Amino acid sequence: MPKISDKGNRMPASPIRRLVPYAEEAIHRGHKVYFLNIGQPDIPTPEVALQAIRHFDEKVVKYSHSAGIESYRRKLAGYYRSVGIDIDWTQIMITTGGSEAILFAMMACFDPGDEIIIPEPFYANYNGFAAEAGVKVVPVTSYIEDGFALPPMEEIEQKITPRTKGIMVCNPNNPTGYLYSREELEALRDIVKKHDLFLFADEVYREFCYDGKEHFSVMNLEGIEENVVLMDSVSKRYSSCGSRIGALITRNREVFDTALKFAQARLSPPTFGQVAAEASLDTPKEYFEEVYNEYIARRDYLVGALNRIDGVFTPVPGGAFYTIVRLPVDDADKFAQWILSDFSYEDATVMLAPASGFYATPGLGKDEVRIAYVLKIDDLKHAVKVLEEALKVYPGRK
Amino acid sequence: MPKISDKGNRMPASPIRRLVPYAEEAIHRGHKVYFLNIGQPDIPTPEVALQAIRHFDEKVVKYSHSAGIESYRRKLAGYYRSVGIDIDWTQIMITTGGSEAILFAMMACFDPGDEIIIPEPFYANYNGFAAEAGVKVVPVTSYIEDGFALPPMEEIEQKITPRTKGIMVCNPNNPTGYLYSREELEALRDIVKKHDLFLFADEVYREFCYDGKEHFSVMNLEGIEENVVLMDSVSKRYSSCGSRIGALITRNREVFDTALKFAQARLSPPTFGQVAAEASLDTPKEYFEEVYNEYIARRDYLVGALNRIDGVFTPVPGGAFYTIVRLPVDDADKFAQWILSDFSYEDATVMLAPASGFYATPGLGKDEVRIAYVLKIDDLKHAVKVLEEALKVYPGRK
Repeated sequence: MPKISDKGNRMPASPIRRLVPYAEEAIHRGHKVYFLNIGQPDIPTPEVALQAIRHFDEKVVKYSHSAGIESYRRKLAGYYRSVGIDIDWTQIMITTGGSEAILFAMMACFDPGDEIIIPEPFYANYNGFAAEAGVKVVPVTSYIEDGFALPPMEEIEQKITPRTKGIMVCNPNNPTGYLYSREELEALRDIVKKHDLFLFADEVYREFCYDGKEHFSVMNLEGIEENVVLMDSVSKRYSSCGSRIGALITRNREVFDTALKFAQARLSPPTFGQVAAEASLDTPKEYFEEVYNEYIARRDYLVGALNRIDGVFTPVPGGAFYTIVRLPVDDADKFAQWILSDFSYEDATVMLAPASGFYATPGLGKDEVRIAYVLKIDDLKHAVKVLEEALKVYPGRK
Repeated sequence: MPKISDKGNRMPASPIRRLVPYAEEAIHRGHKVYFLNIGQPDIPTPEVALQAIRHFDEKVVKYSHSAGIESYRRKLAGYYRSVGIDIDWTQIMITTGGSEAILFAMMACFDPGDEIIIPEPFYANYNGFAAEAGVKVVPVTSYIEDGFALPPMEEIEQKITPRTKGIMVCNPNNPTGYLYSREELEALRDIVKKHDLFLFADEVYREFCYDGKEHFSVMNLEGIEENVVLMDSVSKRYSSCGSRIGALITRNREVFDTALKFAQARLSPPTFGQVAAEASLDTPKEYFEEVYNEYIARRDYLVGALNRIDGVFTPVPGGAFYTIVRLPVDDADKFAQWILSDFSYEDATVMLAPASGFYATPGLGKDEVRIAYVLKIDDLKHAVKVLEEALKVYPGRK
């Protein structure tokens, strides 16, 4: 029997994958499981998008252009102008989810052995795409005590080696919910410029910024126009994860043309998803206001309730819909398994994402979990109660 | 300005990409361009698939399971049983087009520097996925005089080195239309078994076998059950290219689980496409009979008409909807450009795929093009007439 690749062996499994059977067993036992571990919002997809799908009237479901449907790309450029990002439609490549934009950017800009610096904790799947491209992820640690602010520039600069080719940020951040300020990003810009690095930015949570804070896009950092590659997605903005539509955006023509070669190999992004995404651009303003108010209410409830639990701490996230929570436990991986397999409260339990999966430095995040506030407040209330009761009786309580 | 990756530099561009501007100019001049270069059929997508999309009634367009929607995987296993391939639904992973199945298979089974033997001419995008995975493609040449039959086993075996980890076939073949016989595949099986290689098979044209010939799937080769990885797609079977739904199928659990790690990194295949693909499984038999008869008629017309042109030769393809055509020209790349830029007949011209892009051995296929018979017969008639007239006056005629 032939052997799988070393690359396949090294490919990280989803950190929560091993918890899935425990969640399934809990459901099988008749327990309600609150999935606090995933970024699948329960917010309805805009009606304009669903209507466009229901009125799809082509006779043949054809490939689109490898860079996406032109009318969508043109209209999408208008969306970016509306949020203060001035780019031409020819600088936008439609991808199969934001995921594919990350993969194409890695492949186009990095060779095996090249290094990318990423503040940790970070979105665990960056590890996967880096492994596919053979790229080494070099973490620079941010801390819960600072609310996961960008680490000092000296710390980032110390990580730079001759193999460093880029820095990646997610803003607002998954998994921390931290919103980088313009000042932090400008400091980062100076490093990027000084060392002539690529700056990758995942801004899929752009619309989710709270407390009057404004999102500042890396596309508006002056002096590094050719260094920046933006990854975006419709998944969160329009609660349309299953459409699998994202975008790779760059003013660097060489990077764009190279990424396009990868895009051509896979022929085209999904046609139905593009139809839905193009229609989503006409989503009425009220939709976003409602969604925004809903997330604010959920966050305020969740953060307040968690911090009232003895021994629990979470910062107030400025954006996205995640927060990292420190728990009074010996090992959050064990706790996340135990709460599914050995605990229930009023016939319910919760699935948490242990934070260790978001750190590249071994040993970090051992007493932290990520919670996604993608559930209705009533569900969040019940879920937090389950968590509170569980912590009272968990044998590994610190 | 930071530099793109060597990998990106080496990534092959689509071989017809450089012809696209010439086609656009021809259209701009008011000429009708017959696109004989692409595998985008004009056959309508089954009504059951379009109806399923029009009746999509979920409120939230959610991620599916990373391996695909369970009901679709279960039903798809039934389709495979109906064509004599006995597999369990848990051995089927839904991918974003057949393209992603190829990429996942390459990533899961091959490391950078590993070699894969592929009979040439072959589908040009295999080069792209191999480049992404850092895999070296080792061609073994098949010849137009033999109708592109599988080369003798000794020739294949001579290509095996210590780095050889697999062999890949496409059956029926794109770009040649050749249908491998059971005997040819069993001979291949013996090599695969002897050297313990992976056997990758792209069978996306399974339904398109002509002249009473039956398709024999590599999944039914005895004794190499753990070596075989099948790549499939709904694109051609249901004329549903834009749905971007394919499948990776293997009885090798280690390969499956490894591929699943790559699948998890990109979260899920497209939801709408899966809904359409699942519904497509209920396509009435008459649809396939009509499509089959249509392709047979197109093939018969095309092959007959081409071989009646002075100096032109094409074998009779036994499957798929492509044929490689030898033209009496100095250089098919130049000719393909010239016919777009300098020639028209009755205000029409044609876009051809120069075959050199399908060979890995430099210099081969210089006087060959691939023609896809994905257009209506009336269009094919006009297109062949354009080609015939062009060959009469082409300055580089041999």
